Amino acid sequence: MPEIERKFLVAALPPGIEAHRAEPIAQGYLATASDGVEVRIRRRGATTTLTVKSGPAMVRVEEEIPIDAARFAALWPLTEGRRIDKVRHYVPVDDGLTAELDVYAGALEGLLTAEIEFPSEAAARDFTPPPWLGEDVTGDPAYANQALAVRPARARPPG
Amino acid sequence: MPEIERKFLVAALPPGIEAHRAEPIAQGYLATASDGVEVRIRRRGATTTLTVKSGPAMVRVEEEIPIDAARFAALWPLTEGRRIDKVRHYVPVDDGLTAELDVYAGALEGLLTAEIEFPSEAAARDFTPPPWLGEDVTGDPAYANQALAVRPARARPPG
Repeated sequence: MPEIERKFLVAALPPGIEAHRAEPIAQGYLATASDGVEVRIRRRGATTTLTVKSGPAMVRVEEEIPIDAARFAALWPLTEGRRIDKVRHYVPVDDGLTAELDVYAGALEGLLTAEIEFPSEAAARDFTPPPWLGEDVTGDPAYANQALAVRPARARPPG
Repeated sequence: MPEIERKFLVAALPPGIEAHRAEPIAQGYLATASDGVEVRIRRRGATTTLTVKSGPAMVRVEEEIPIDAARFAALWPLTEGRRIDKVRHYVPVDDGLTAELDVYAGALEGLLTAEIEFPSEAAARDFTPPPWLGEDVTGDPAYANQALAVRPARARPPG
């Protein structure tokens, strides 16, 4: 089942951010095929995985394979130039929903985005963003993970 | 340590081939990066794996990750158009060495190649091929696995 998500740009960290859970995420792309099949590795907190995703024109396949830290360390150099480093903050918003607020580092320093997953299309449509959420970039390919990994988006300095 | 191997074309199956062990191998490439990083899956007999290899200009990395049959089946459709199907025969040759004789099927039907791994450079140089081994194509990029997967080589009908 496809996830129902909206993605926003964020100009500045919302007040009280320190109170919420946060974890570093490092992800890098090993390879992407011309038909869009992509293979990436990710370290999120202490968890390391390798994920294979189908291309946009295919029946959707996503396989997440647990790998250990040593394997992750061996593969990481192969993602040079195709990486994303960020800290993800889990920020409660209305209706029991959680915004995943990503603060990018490295080549994307200054970029902040937030993603919210909704239980239904109606909930996604009716959602009223809090003031700290900026421009809605849902579906904008320039802000897809893989695009961010290979070419810096317009940086937005916080504050 | 790099493997020391020689690869040959084979015109016809050698006499007595039925006496030797053989197993089907199916392999498909999920994706290859522009710097040569490649990710493939393989089923060899009952064993299924996902392998990540570094590109030619990098420090050599090769990580083979065991995956189960269900995961292999889920990923296999993503390798469409980038596959190799063959039966590998293990044929003893002089000096206790074994030739891995691959008989290709599908788009490469009619192609037969044999690879022999040697314990030293000297052994590789001094090896006298038996008459059933044909042209030496060691190092010929046209016969590298990945090249074979994406474009049929010149077919050589057996017999």
